[in-house]
Amino acid sequence: MHEIRITGLGTYLPRQMHTNETLPALEPPLAKADMDRIGVLRRGWASDEEGVAEMGVIAARRALEQARVEPAGLDFIVLANWSERRYVPDFAPVIQAALGARRAFAFDVCCACAGFVYGLAMAHGFLQNPRYRRGIVLASDHSTRRIRPRSRGTLVFGDGAGCMVLERRAEGGGRLIDYELTSDGSHNGIMDVGADGYLRTHIRQADLNALAGRSIGAVSRALLERNGLGFDDLSWVVPHSGTAGVQAMVAENLGVPTAKILTNLPLIGNVTTASIPAALSHFLEQGKIKPGQLILSASVGLGWQAVAALYTL
Amino acid sequence: MHEIRITGLGTYLPRQMHTNETLPALEPPLAKADMDRIGVLRRGWASDEEGVAEMGVIAARRALEQARVEPAGLDFIVLANWSERRYVPDFAPVIQAALGARRAFAFDVCCACAGFVYGLAMAHGFLQNPRYRRGIVLASDHSTRRIRPRSRGTLVFGDGAGCMVLERRAEGGGRLIDYELTSDGSHNGIMDVGADGYLRTHIRQADLNALAGRSIGAVSRALLERNGLGFDDLSWVVPHSGTAGVQAMVAENLGVPTAKILTNLPLIGNVTTASIPAALSHFLEQGKIKPGQLILSASVGLGWQAVAALYTL
Repeated sequence: MHEIRITGLGTYLPRQMHTNETLPALEPPLAKADMDRIGVLRRGWASDEEGVAEMGVIAARRALEQARVEPAGLDFIVLANWSERRYVPDFAPVIQAALGARRAFAFDVCCACAGFVYGLAMAHGFLQNPRYRRGIVLASDHSTRRIRPRSRGTLVFGDGAGCMVLERRAEGGGRLIDYELTSDGSHNGIMDVGADGYLRTHIRQADLNALAGRSIGAVSRALLERNGLGFDDLSWVVPHSGTAGVQAMVAENLGVPTAKILTNLPLIGNVTTASIPAALSHFLEQGKIKPGQLILSASVGLGWQAVAALYTL
Repeated sequence: MHEIRITGLGTYLPRQMHTNETLPALEPPLAKADMDRIGVLRRGWASDEEGVAEMGVIAARRALEQARVEPAGLDFIVLANWSERRYVPDFAPVIQAALGARRAFAFDVCCACAGFVYGLAMAHGFLQNPRYRRGIVLASDHSTRRIRPRSRGTLVFGDGAGCMVLERRAEGGGRLIDYELTSDGSHNGIMDVGADGYLRTHIRQADLNALAGRSIGAVSRALLERNGLGFDDLSWVVPHSGTAGVQAMVAENLGVPTAKILTNLPLIGNVTTASIPAALSHFLEQGKIKPGQLILSASVGLGWQAVAALYTL
């Protein structure tokens, strides 16, 4: 197989960031201490002018600039987005036109919070084809639209976009080493979106956390084993952010020191599909993640999906 | 690149097939002669028990039987579906669980009527990865749900599912030779689904037909040229069915004799994503398509998408 390089990252967060103080009061109300315990201190609320396409375009431009790739040089655009879906048409072509990526084919992928890693796997496949050289995997979600106003979910979810540039070439950039995708449709019904447009959970939160932890543990172990690696070989685990409860179960199931698990959930909330690229941008800028370090990202998504990717930046 | 084989095809059509006589009267009414001129004589109306997942499962079973592949041996399931989309979760994992395809990852693809060919391209990519051996590309749509009752659209659209089995192996079955995917987001707004759940057209039908014809012509020529082929080298063109108007524009733009263009649109209506596999099953059973004959399939999809695939069965 051809080696796939990661050559750029970009993020967009909404202009309006709510702290626990500025967030509209919950109904029923929640004490300040209980709010803080949920583990999210800030989250972005996108405006009507910051839709999936608008946020996605800005994150894509930032990632392309970092990669020094012109939009016209892109072969494809994969957009992960679950929150603003339409029957037809897809959003990805809107982004293609706005970027001026004339040669690129562009399509939406679903898979809820597993969409970004699914997109990486699709990009990996397309880049095995000698006629394609480079593409982007973009995640953009206006998730707060799918959360009932004044519910506890408003504490956890945030809006945002993240983008990764992938290229088939021998040198430069990080390496997308391998990925693992798994589905289990027997859990299809545990969450959905009601007729009112808001996310609903049909499972106890503790059971959801446990399922997420087990699923991420299993998919991560399978991916590492196939590559002859163990958790000790990893520099960092950058999981889909989820919730603090999910993260605790992930840490427990992976059996890695919590110091190795990087998440900016407290600063931006659960930005769903965008959580992995947004965390990578953040910790790369902070100098915490260094080029060449081995990173595992794992995510669950409603469906039920459990996915993981192994790479360096 | 590895050679990808096509080893099975399957279709499902609803139990209730409406002729122009049994179809609920249009408002405003349309003379029998005008109805017949639209070119669709029968179309299926799926019941509540024949949803995207139920139709998809049956089409998949039929295709897998033809390929002599057990569901448990599948590595992936790609589901094209535009008509019953949800924010979350995807439908593909429901099909994975119903089939008992335990090892398979499963996800939905959108791209409207271009979804089936997009699925083929994704399958082609996954099958370049040595760890995957076989998967299905499934298209299942309950499109009549998205058509305003008693509108002219009820004449044209039908429900149904179609499935293709793809395997990475050196011998047996047809060959997926190459594909071409293109997008043009500048036409993103020409059709959509309104708040009432029904498809709306914001472009004159004649302009839509012309755009479809031009797009299919361009993508087909690009695909053939890259493979050093011309339209004369093709045994058959099996396009996405669309409408009789679109088909006329396709024939004109491709410059191929209409006798080379195979469609079962008159018998099953526009079954959207399922139209290509459903036509292939039909004409293969009829003995019209013979193993080894070179076939081009092309499709447009709202987005705007124009896609094509070159293969033998």
